[in-house]
Amino acid sequence: MATTKGKTAPLKVIPLGGLDGIGKNMTVIECGPDMMLVDAGLMFPDDSQPGIDLVLPDYTYVLENEDKLRGIIITHGHEDHTGALPYLLQDLNNKVPIFSSKLTLGFIEGKLSEFRIRAPKFREVKGGSHVNLGCLSVDFFSMTHSIPGALGIFVKSPQGTVMHTGDFKLDQTPIDGVTPDYAAITRFGKSGVDLLLSDSTNATVPGFTKSEAEVGHSLYDAIKNAEGRVFVASFSSHIHRLQQICDAAKACGRKIVVTGRSMLTNTRVARELGYLKIDENDLVDAYELNGIPENKVVVMCTGSQGEPLSALSRMANGEHKTLSIHDGDTVIISATPVPGNEKAVQQVVNSLAKLGCDVYDKHRCLVHVSGHGSQEELKLMLAMARPTYFMPVHGEAVHLRAHAKLGEKMGIPRDNIFVIDNGDSLEMRAGKVKRGRAVESGVVYVDGLRIGDTDPIVLRDRQKLANDGMVTVVATMSTKRKKIEAIEVSGRGVSFTIDDEFTSDASDSIMKMIEKGSFNFTSSGTDALRKAVRDSLSNFIWNRTHTRPMIIPVVMEV
Amino acid sequence: MATTKGKTAPLKVIPLGGLDGIGKNMTVIECGPDMMLVDAGLMFPDDSQPGIDLVLPDYTYVLENEDKLRGIIITHGHEDHTGALPYLLQDLNNKVPIFSSKLTLGFIEGKLSEFRIRAPKFREVKGGSHVNLGCLSVDFFSMTHSIPGALGIFVKSPQGTVMHTGDFKLDQTPIDGVTPDYAAITRFGKSGVDLLLSDSTNATVPGFTKSEAEVGHSLYDAIKNAEGRVFVASFSSHIHRLQQICDAAKACGRKIVVTGRSMLTNTRVARELGYLKIDENDLVDAYELNGIPENKVVVMCTGSQGEPLSALSRMANGEHKTLSIHDGDTVIISATPVPGNEKAVQQVVNSLAKLGCDVYDKHRCLVHVSGHGSQEELKLMLAMARPTYFMPVHGEAVHLRAHAKLGEKMGIPRDNIFVIDNGDSLEMRAGKVKRGRAVESGVVYVDGLRIGDTDPIVLRDRQKLANDGMVTVVATMSTKRKKIEAIEVSGRGVSFTIDDEFTSDASDSIMKMIEKGSFNFTSSGTDALRKAVRDSLSNFIWNRTHTRPMIIPVVMEV
Repeated sequence: MATTKGKTAPLKVIPLGGLDGIGKNMTVIECGPDMMLVDAGLMFPDDSQPGIDLVLPDYTYVLENEDKLRGIIITHGHEDHTGALPYLLQDLNNKVPIFSSKLTLGFIEGKLSEFRIRAPKFREVKGGSHVNLGCLSVDFFSMTHSIPGALGIFVKSPQGTVMHTGDFKLDQTPIDGVTPDYAAITRFGKSGVDLLLSDSTNATVPGFTKSEAEVGHSLYDAIKNAEGRVFVASFSSHIHRLQQICDAAKACGRKIVVTGRSMLTNTRVARELGYLKIDENDLVDAYELNGIPENKVVVMCTGSQGEPLSALSRMANGEHKTLSIHDGDTVIISATPVPGNEKAVQQVVNSLAKLGCDVYDKHRCLVHVSGHGSQEELKLMLAMARPTYFMPVHGEAVHLRAHAKLGEKMGIPRDNIFVIDNGDSLEMRAGKVKRGRAVESGVVYVDGLRIGDTDPIVLRDRQKLANDGMVTVVATMSTKRKKIEAIEVSGRGVSFTIDDEFTSDASDSIMKMIEKGSFNFTSSGTDALRKAVRDSLSNFIWNRTHTRPMIIPVVMEV
Repeated sequence: MATTKGKTAPLKVIPLGGLDGIGKNMTVIECGPDMMLVDAGLMFPDDSQPGIDLVLPDYTYVLENEDKLRGIIITHGHEDHTGALPYLLQDLNNKVPIFSSKLTLGFIEGKLSEFRIRAPKFREVKGGSHVNLGCLSVDFFSMTHSIPGALGIFVKSPQGTVMHTGDFKLDQTPIDGVTPDYAAITRFGKSGVDLLLSDSTNATVPGFTKSEAEVGHSLYDAIKNAEGRVFVASFSSHIHRLQQICDAAKACGRKIVVTGRSMLTNTRVARELGYLKIDENDLVDAYELNGIPENKVVVMCTGSQGEPLSALSRMANGEHKTLSIHDGDTVIISATPVPGNEKAVQQVVNSLAKLGCDVYDKHRCLVHVSGHGSQEELKLMLAMARPTYFMPVHGEAVHLRAHAKLGEKMGIPRDNIFVIDNGDSLEMRAGKVKRGRAVESGVVYVDGLRIGDTDPIVLRDRQKLANDGMVTVVATMSTKRKKIEAIEVSGRGVSFTIDDEFTSDASDSIMKMIEKGSFNFTSSGTDALRKAVRDSLSNFIWNRTHTRPMIIPVVMEV
């Protein structure tokens, strides 16, 4: 049995990300001297994080325990499971093996090479694979998700067992024929799952998520009915979707053009690794389209989230270097907007409508299905795994709690269900689970070259600047004549015009305020003067405009 | 027959708003010396308009033709139909009569009094009313929508007829029993509708929108099943919904508490005018709740859009003065997030889930139905009105075009369907419609006290400030010694720390650049120096941080 400092060491399960929203998934599983990491994902910033490029989980705990780290397991190739990897690997002193499926490793390889991370220790696994990481033994099993090569894991330790589903749906008719490995899940369930960690993304959605195969029928119908060219925008990692688009194109006698940086990269990787099957003859380069009739073409592109620099947006705006969308074309947005992207997607849809395109989106037909299981699938997973303890993972607060309720309905005692926060830990001893001590956790912002904890004041300042703009006021103070000699005002992003009259009135107002006070016109008095200048200008602007721009006062001695 | 300058004047229909999105609806109908306005709405700004308070249609055309303006017709009491009214009335020289239903006028009265607009000329009308506005004769007919008192109009002019549906759905079981007036619509249709203007909001949605009554069953079930207090957040103008909440509360033996400023105002107005029926005994004040068991209370509140200052958000955060939401309470979000509000609503839902509330939202049951008709209703309207010409209104580009297609399917020739832009006009002569000349149009921003066209550069600057922050650099130039003597750098909203080392390095970099150039250290040279300071600091910051904050350079002569 594993021990630390002479005591019997518990199995620890510590989620460092993934419990405060959809994204930046990362979970530590540790027993005595051995530790493994499940996923290393990122999250994209939202409106409350202006100017932030990426959000990572705080993985200080992993770095502090690097000597124990035996391996990193990546359940599938989405960025919310892989995107923190380049940062983490740069911060680790040693090369740690990365275990994942062929496709996932293919996607990761491309990303790591962008970061100039050379020769990572890749260890390819698949459903049925088994690896030992110190005293932790890991069995991998196939799952279905909106990307091929998704894996769940079953971990045995001296203290008990943990199953982690990864992201999943239970698709009985997956495009690549690789169904969830029900036999393995039920076998593990029968042998005893002490603790289950299961994907909660769709825990508030009743029913059973539709099979990916159903989207194929809609895509075929839409392409079949189109009279001109067809453009299909989709997630570039959604290889099953891309396969269905290509199959529908071929069935309709159309050639396929691929455009958009990630779409080109991912189709290349997925074809090389055998995950995406497109006949070479069915592919055409964008600049070779001339001469091919419009009703013989399907363009597969990025831009399903309304990203302004994506292929779809560029083609719609006439800014793409080889292709443009025009009257009579059909555009299929084969995706659902990620929360926060609704307006951007709608803007692209409107641009396309104005061009005279026939647009298919989620309002019109089944152009997309979720990659996450709904309530019936989550209950089925609980029924097959039969865990003693249960921790919902991968979701916002409402999803984790909804999933916990499903667990209760399935007969798991309420006390055996743990809805915890990132950085909290669970400890298992001889199959019994209780809460452990919390570890350092939180978020880390990538903001330009800076990777670290951006001060909340910086984000508040950015929001204030966005709402109200800013005004710089430079006051020249004569230490000889003991007075302010000149005031200059300039502004950006403000709703009013700063002309000579405005500056003159503002200066008068500031001067009047300063005359009333008793200031010391020396170097030691600049702080007080700066404050007075800021406050009086702020009042002046409020009275005149009812706005409160950020005021940047500078007092210069002459 | 109406004439201008001796010629036969056409009937003009000029949408000034409502054709570029959902909001700021406003349409001019004019014939010779007589003009009427249908609706005067506002729109709320989106992410691309940071810091803007409200967006209004540019109604210059109305002001320029005020002498012709015989009346303003408001089809219903939503802000996208009424919100520009206070601004418009302040800009008009004369008091123009405002025609609308009792409830709509009640809501408008409250709004106008906030703007201190006294004694407006209100003219109450209802379905079946008829008014003459010069040579324009107007018949009003009842419609169903997500607010009571919604009206459509049928306008007769010397040149032909126009029907305007207003916003509508075709609800066969409306809560107040006032169904759409099919008899009137078909009678007008038979008598001849030359031009139909019809609501396009849901033109991309197949089928028939569910009746408001269906929401009542869900509300009842949710309240019946609740063990503790129930909080229902809803649009405060949605009087039918409020009626159903109150009815369900009463049926479950619960008292009703109303909270949130607009919820209090609107329930008061709607009760006074007889639109909302709540027994005085069933209402309780928030501060009188003590002593009433938790399972005997329903709180009806604002906040269904996740607004941070609304009653729901405040109660969830413990910032409400009398009420707080806790473990065991049930919260029903009886609304769908307006596009752009998804994240804010989800944030409130997560806060509530963390408190231990049972949350009902659109994912869980039928807590909301749309107030706009879907494709089958839009086709039914076309079938009843049988217009010769058709102009889809109230929608984004994609909605107007989808509605136009429905028109084609219903047998209206493509050339008789007009998908136009705000400010474009249609002209009718003897029942024949063609495009007329465009008039001044666009958007007007309300930004603090300023009402006018905010420079797009201001909005771009605000977005840049939000993304990258700003840095002020003040360079002191000695005209005597012909050099820059000192450089001060300060920043807000930037991801890096501006300490002494940073300032010293930045100064060195700027000085080096200036030494290389040939500058004229006099007043006439400050522009060139300012540019050099800005560019060299910008390069310095990019190289060090890979960010590009806005740089505000100031050069001071000493």
